Amino acid sequence: MANSSSGESVAERIARILETFDAERSVQTPSEIARRAGLPSSTAHRLVTELVGTGLLDRDADGRVRLGMHLWEVAQRGSRALRLREAALPFMELVHARVREHIQLAVLEQGEALFLERLSDARAVSNITRIAGRLPLHASSSGLVLLAFADDELRERVLARPLPAVTADTVTDPGRLRELLARIRQEGIVVARGFVEPVSTGVAVPIRQRGRVIAALSVVLPRESPTAGAVEELRRAAAGISRRLDEPAE
Amino acid sequence: MANSSSGESVAERIARILETFDAERSVQTPSEIARRAGLPSSTAHRLVTELVGTGLLDRDADGRVRLGMHLWEVAQRGSRALRLREAALPFMELVHARVREHIQLAVLEQGEALFLERLSDARAVSNITRIAGRLPLHASSSGLVLLAFADDELRERVLARPLPAVTADTVTDPGRLRELLARIRQEGIVVARGFVEPVSTGVAVPIRQRGRVIAALSVVLPRESPTAGAVEELRRAAAGISRRLDEPAE
Repeated sequence: MANSSSGESVAERIARILETFDAERSVQTPSEIARRAGLPSSTAHRLVTELVGTGLLDRDADGRVRLGMHLWEVAQRGSRALRLREAALPFMELVHARVREHIQLAVLEQGEALFLERLSDARAVSNITRIAGRLPLHASSSGLVLLAFADDELRERVLARPLPAVTADTVTDPGRLRELLARIRQEGIVVARGFVEPVSTGVAVPIRQRGRVIAALSVVLPRESPTAGAVEELRRAAAGISRRLDEPAE
Repeated sequence: MANSSSGESVAERIARILETFDAERSVQTPSEIARRAGLPSSTAHRLVTELVGTGLLDRDADGRVRLGMHLWEVAQRGSRALRLREAALPFMELVHARVREHIQLAVLEQGEALFLERLSDARAVSNITRIAGRLPLHASSSGLVLLAFADDELRERVLARPLPAVTADTVTDPGRLRELLARIRQEGIVVARGFVEPVSTGVAVPIRQRGRVIAALSVVLPRESPTAGAVEELRRAAAGISRRLDEPAE
């Protein structure tokens, strides 16, 4: 019943429809959605209408479609992202008050660093990351921390595949990357100068829950800035967040 | 193809499955999901498996299911909630630095106040709201602001239905509520003393985008606190957020 002749489930088609929306395409016509999701027009129109009925999508008076506030609500309500964010945000605010640059929280998701939160100063240096955006594990400071503490299987898979240079300073040699990851595991910190953007330096530390690394906390500084102050603030914040995560739930 | 014998679409069933998750039930077995969603067990198991395949749900080694980080990512990426939050958060931080209590951002969603963000002080007064939680329009300070500036049709619908007392101080008389809403429209502020919790006072102001009220910004103070300082901070923050929202997109 739920499968099309192509063997694809309705759930997959719905996921593909939801995935067509992003910051640049937050409002689309059903025909644009069909094209971007690679679905027959009639199928996309019908599923969009059904999703509008549930509140997961909204349709305006012109027939254009956007993600429904209800989708956001459902996704937030039961999500680990929300609990991690809530534990982290007060400590991120403290770091932000002292290091007036970008402070970011990231987790490992499907082989990339997914950014859950970012606090930014209006005058801070350029920063490529976005909330709900992703960066490669081998290039970003957060990604390097997540990769250093990931299970061996994922680490070997990343080391075995091509490591694209995001800038001239990205570590793209598997041997050098392996050494860097070992050092991160030992020191519990990485200072990534110009790996993602030539003008900036990322500094990241692991956040642990019951001993296991579950996230990375990072700051992005102008490339030649001293990093000692940020390192100290990050370590203190990560320790505070871990304490909060390890407390029994309310 | 996509409809069951009950006439319900697969999209509706998927929405019902996602809606069974919340802060208290963030991890469930497929059988619990089936029961809470009111679906036949075989249907729920099949849809859960399909949703796990898309990343919208995650299944752990014990077969227990939770919302996938990918659902959060999709919901954030293209959402108005994210853009409003990003515009509001720097100003909320400023209010928070000066009024060390709860600062909240809410929008009107399906006849209730839906809270998009909250910054809290560890020592702040009791506060019933949660991020992605809801409160009734007639009882919360945010809800009253949203209701005061809502279209006439919604306002009349709320005034016509029973107005439950959340505390002894909630305004439950339609005539008094109508007067209160008129005053909020005139003054652009509400001070709700004990309407939601006897121990606290909510103060809320509207946030406008191109002149139209799209959200409410509020603080929750101990009931007998002076409110003048918070009122001034809220008005300044709301004006700043509106300026940011009215800027052309990057």
